[in-house]
Amino acid sequence: MKLIIGNKNYSSWSLRGWLMLKVFEIPFEETLLPLFSEQFYAVLKDYTPVGKVPVLVDQDVSVWDSLAICEYLNETYLHGKAWPSDAQHRAVARAMVCEMHSGFSALRNEMPMNCRAHRSISLSESAQQDVARIDQLWARCLTRYAGGKPWLFGEFSIADVFFAPIVFRFKTYGISLSTESTAYQKRLLAHPAMQLWLAEALKETAVVPEDEAGEER
Amino acid sequence: MKLIIGNKNYSSWSLRGWLMLKVFEIPFEETLLPLFSEQFYAVLKDYTPVGKVPVLVDQDVSVWDSLAICEYLNETYLHGKAWPSDAQHRAVARAMVCEMHSGFSALRNEMPMNCRAHRSISLSESAQQDVARIDQLWARCLTRYAGGKPWLFGEFSIADVFFAPIVFRFKTYGISLSTESTAYQKRLLAHPAMQLWLAEALKETAVVPEDEAGEER
Repeated sequence: MKLIIGNKNYSSWSLRGWLMLKVFEIPFEETLLPLFSEQFYAVLKDYTPVGKVPVLVDQDVSVWDSLAICEYLNETYLHGKAWPSDAQHRAVARAMVCEMHSGFSALRNEMPMNCRAHRSISLSESAQQDVARIDQLWARCLTRYAGGKPWLFGEFSIADVFFAPIVFRFKTYGISLSTESTAYQKRLLAHPAMQLWLAEALKETAVVPEDEAGEER
Repeated sequence: MKLIIGNKNYSSWSLRGWLMLKVFEIPFEETLLPLFSEQFYAVLKDYTPVGKVPVLVDQDVSVWDSLAICEYLNETYLHGKAWPSDAQHRAVARAMVCEMHSGFSALRNEMPMNCRAHRSISLSESAQQDVARIDQLWARCLTRYAGGKPWLFGEFSIADVFFAPIVFRFKTYGISLSTESTAYQKRLLAHPAMQLWLAEALKETAVVPEDEAGEER
């Protein structure tokens, strides 16, 4: 099984597919294609005409969307354990993940993921609403569904996978959150798989002018 | 079980939740809230702070995204039959549905759903690419996965549910498609549930100035 991803420093969608495989210890080969390179489109076109990462290639099947990748891995390799086992909790988890999958465009536009560039930012009202909504979703989960365990629905799930890139963004852009959400953000950042992604992101060559992004740390 | 939707004429996301319930004959009550009305936000806020439709309310659980609604109904009431039974086909179906769920923004912006307003339109290059991509996805499915049956993966599935609003758009905006996709579009338009939605859409009061949309038919 192969996962095709973009640069770890920038590609928030790639992080989702990669984290799913790493956290749930599913063996895979990683193919990293530098974003905006000729190689990126040349290699990807064999698997998806969309030209977006991540793409999971498992023998004869190519899966070209991060949520579809998570669902596929969950069904094929994990006997369903990557979603909450309770049907109601699972419904809420899927609704949150889908909200993240199709929404939060202001936050995405104004706070592109750049794991190594710490900076402060002035957010539009829409992006502030996006931040507040995510804070509310996390805090609600931790109170209602986590049952005292570290992750949004107790055990690590696709919900945590989907909000992982947000955790890097909130950290680098210095976003303040509720107490519950701040503690969750710290836990997710400290996860060994997240630390491994970050360490590899820090080693990559810049492909966008990062001086504009303020000091690199 | 209750499904909260917006105006049938305009609300493409509502159509997805509603069609899933209708086609698979799951009993439900429909609550239609006129878009942009005070009632819309007043009623919705009890179920979702996001203020978007559709929302499925099944006893204690509210599901506020159309894909999450489809997955919930499929698991809870349909024993999984709303996805293709073959694991590889299911992976492709989910990737297509997810691509529709998070993408095609040019098409969405330039061709808002309005079931009763027929008009011609000059599309941007991005929107033309979106149309071509959907045509390609449909034709590929009908050739590879449909097995001579009428729907994208043979039996009616969540993939057909997700592309249903596109079928209304391609019809009203007079979009030309490949032979296979044109035949599929006609079949989906002729489905009794789609015809019922359309009949009800035609009876609704306009809430946006439809003269701009050209002749109503």
